[in-house]
Amino acid sequence: MTYNVEAGAGVFVSPVFFPSEESYGHLLSTLNSAKKSMDICVFTITDDQITRAITQAVERGVKVRIISDDDKSEDLGSDVKRLARDYNIPTRVDGSEAHMHHKFVIIDDSLVINGSYNWTKGARFDNREDLTLTNSGKAVQAFKSEFAKLWSAFEAY
Amino acid sequence: MTYNVEAGAGVFVSPVFFPSEESYGHLLSTLNSAKKSMDICVFTITDDQITRAITQAVERGVKVRIISDDDKSEDLGSDVKRLARDYNIPTRVDGSEAHMHHKFVIIDDSLVINGSYNWTKGARFDNREDLTLTNSGKAVQAFKSEFAKLWSAFEAY
Ligand SMILES: [Zn+2]
Ligand SMILES: [Zn+2]
Repeated sequence: MTYNVEAGAGVFVSPVFFPSEESYGHLLSTLNSAKKSMDICVFTITDDQITRAITQAVERGVKVRIISDDDKSEDLGSDVKRLARDYNIPTRVDGSEAHMHHKFVIIDDSLVINGSYNWTKGARFDNREDLTLTNSGKAVQAFKSEFAKLWSAFEAY
Repeated sequence: MTYNVEAGAGVFVSPVFFPSEESYGHLLSTLNSAKKSMDICVFTITDDQITRAITQAVERGVKVRIISDDDKSEDLGSDVKRLARDYNIPTRVDGSEAHMHHKFVIIDDSLVINGSYNWTKGARFDNREDLTLTNSGKAVQAFKSEFAKLWSAFEAY
């Protein structure tokens, strides 16, 4: 593997920090900007407002897929089960005691967000957290490959 | 705040994924490449090999600072206390029930690594994790500002 390949012209790398309602607004508006696809790969989802952004994406025809952690998805307050069952979002989980600990999302195959931020109210309101948004083609491609690899390896939820 | 400012020429954005000994080697060799400074801001450190990379950096004159979570630093197996007390590394913690949940490090004020990856053996060997390395000046500057803000806000450990 080759590291540190140049990202090329027109590339942005934008970190945002939490708690910050401005950062949260940027996350939400980025989710709301999805037109074609949203590949979500996050440890846990318990923030109803993010869950609504996901269901609204489904309603406007965005192809959403979710990878999450099997154990966390059974937690009280987890929205993963509801997204999978009530909204028929294709969802896969790790089926392992290890953590599916990623917190990234790929939007329209052209932008990726990753960082420390789980999709929870604690991350939004209480914790010190970071997310980085980038349109780097190489970064997007790398996260797409990771998503595809886990999608193949994991079982339907 | 302006989002999505272009990163400029010569910029790389390099994600790596775990578990992968190649990714781990890339993380370690990047820590080992530090010449002047290493500003560490991570939820928890329990991986002895990473701890050794930190102490070796101190021994070769790198100015290391650590920000971590107060509660995790008291966990069995946490290396934060040892780094602070035995190696006199300036260390600050959040003093809050919320999580100091970041997982980033700034090296030589010129490279930043962030992602889902805590500095633990579980992250190395078991979990699905990601880290992105970038030399984007805007990203490095943003993480430097966050580090400085938390350093001022938190108490000495
Ligand atoms: Zn699991
Ligand atoms: Zn705390």
